[in-house]
Amino acid sequence: MIFATLNNDTPDGELLVVNKARSRAVRAGSIAPTLQSALDRWDAVMPVLRELSDKLERNEVSDDFEIDLSALMAPLPRSYAYFDAGCYPHHLIPIRAARGAKIPEDFYEKPLMYEGCSAPIAGPKEPLRLLKDDEWGVDIEAEVAAVLGDVPAGVKREDAARYIRLLVLYNDTSLRQLTAPELGRGFGFLQSKPMSSMGPFAITPDEAGELWNGEFLGGRYLLHVRGEVIGDLDPGKDNIFTWPDLIVHAAKTRPLIAGTLMAAGTLGNEDRRHGCGCLAELRSREQLTEGSARTPFLKFGDSFRLELLDRDGQSVFGAIDQRLEQLPEPKHEHA
Amino acid sequence: MIFATLNNDTPDGELLVVNKARSRAVRAGSIAPTLQSALDRWDAVMPVLRELSDKLERNEVSDDFEIDLSALMAPLPRSYAYFDAGCYPHHLIPIRAARGAKIPEDFYEKPLMYEGCSAPIAGPKEPLRLLKDDEWGVDIEAEVAAVLGDVPAGVKREDAARYIRLLVLYNDTSLRQLTAPELGRGFGFLQSKPMSSMGPFAITPDEAGELWNGEFLGGRYLLHVRGEVIGDLDPGKDNIFTWPDLIVHAAKTRPLIAGTLMAAGTLGNEDRRHGCGCLAELRSREQLTEGSARTPFLKFGDSFRLELLDRDGQSVFGAIDQRLEQLPEPKHEHA
Repeated sequence: MIFATLNNDTPDGELLVVNKARSRAVRAGSIAPTLQSALDRWDAVMPVLRELSDKLERNEVSDDFEIDLSALMAPLPRSYAYFDAGCYPHHLIPIRAARGAKIPEDFYEKPLMYEGCSAPIAGPKEPLRLLKDDEWGVDIEAEVAAVLGDVPAGVKREDAARYIRLLVLYNDTSLRQLTAPELGRGFGFLQSKPMSSMGPFAITPDEAGELWNGEFLGGRYLLHVRGEVIGDLDPGKDNIFTWPDLIVHAAKTRPLIAGTLMAAGTLGNEDRRHGCGCLAELRSREQLTEGSARTPFLKFGDSFRLELLDRDGQSVFGAIDQRLEQLPEPKHEHA
Repeated sequence: MIFATLNNDTPDGELLVVNKARSRAVRAGSIAPTLQSALDRWDAVMPVLRELSDKLERNEVSDDFEIDLSALMAPLPRSYAYFDAGCYPHHLIPIRAARGAKIPEDFYEKPLMYEGCSAPIAGPKEPLRLLKDDEWGVDIEAEVAAVLGDVPAGVKREDAARYIRLLVLYNDTSLRQLTAPELGRGFGFLQSKPMSSMGPFAITPDEAGELWNGEFLGGRYLLHVRGEVIGDLDPGKDNIFTWPDLIVHAAKTRPLIAGTLMAAGTLGNEDRRHGCGCLAELRSREQLTEGSARTPFLKFGDSFRLELLDRDGQSVFGAIDQRLEQLPEPKHEHA
């Protein structure tokens, strides 16, 4: 099944069931008004939603409509938890090498994971709005994420995959000039990880077809920045962990709540011809090979586009297609 | 105004408006079925809720009822974001001294803050359920937290206080044996900060009366562990930051969503006669003065109680009154 969320000027929007061509949709309505409400009552609502989806596919609903991508929010516009883990050493190695930092010794044994900004999440065609550009070093990170159901604390690895409800395309916005000083204080990321964004369509794993191996996702992930391809990556290659590993790690001491986003980190393949999943890696490679970073971080007005294609070249999640815009400083409000 | 949340077997529970004596309540019903829904539409719903609250106070509602504390969930059982900041150097100094670690140089200039587990949050009388005790070093942290409205990115300090919607009593559960190895990996807390808990009543700042100075909260904060008082602290003393400082820090690069929890860190007063806001500090002080830590961390079956009293000895938020219980390992589920 494929879901999207229509902007109706509420924080959660309105849940849509989408056809396989990702072109037409019908409101889930009272079955589950929002994606969070569907995740909260997954087993009860899924059979009913699947019936609606089947009818939509057979053209048997009367109130379906053509999707306007710019009217969509993130499929899950606010989530109760967001985790992100480093699954791709070939992303992290050059970045850390360029600044003389090492990878933790147990990097390959235990996911390096943080909890970060889970709400709000920008929609696929919204502008990405920030107060500063150059001073902060604005970067995007090409990622995929799983949306989880309620996971019990201490879940066993062999049970973890069953809590994967949906897959989404994710951009983890990162402010590179703030990262090192913040991590240096010892409490992890905070100001250096602002609002992120999600692709238009959340899919159940079966909709990924042969790209889904039961634990992780493959495909052709294209990252454009300022109109140029900087990454043509395969998320299913060179990853040292899969979603069950990440779920077990996050749920070691606590339950995870339905709607939890589990991102698998910035993509990076061993074969350098695949390019990069973010500007920081590209700049690090330039620095290591050419002596200095040539490609600038994002400036106001710059565009970026993230998309995963299947073996036939079809877009799996639709594209994140945004532009960086300047957010005005909030004015002092007189009481 | 005073709010509580009744357990109705849904993740968000049912919003209650509570009288000033914290003894009787009425359902907010269709005005705002949950606290999150009230926070989402605060300006619109507050006048209506205030009317209901006034009627309750004047005994003019017919469907009010006596509060059963064990039927309450956390006032906000799941939140979209939880931040916690170190506002009390006299908590942190002995802990770091005992393990030979330093406080960051800019500790007094810029809040040391992390983003952590915001959902689910245990109710005031629920057992605290964990898989292990000794091996993890289970501790509680006596804290107060503000519940925020929608805060714009880059909010000015002079505007920040107006986004404080509610105040709550908070226990930030901490697993001390997991903390140092986790922080050593550089990505902050995750497994070492499991599910936390909240006092039964969320109050608007005006309900704190003279304890509220417009930016922060005072009072007499009692922490009992295994029936003994280990802390008799004043949150309004020796804090180096107030809520506007914390809000400005968290919102520097991103908006904060309605319902965000901003905790002010484990209480610690300069005058040692106030005792400690957690077991780790008590153990560090024992280690520094007596050569070794005498007081054990929490074991299964141990009780703890957190409460803030006003100048008349009345409970401001009601008490967090829990017991640590062993959660059984989840069994392997056959597919």
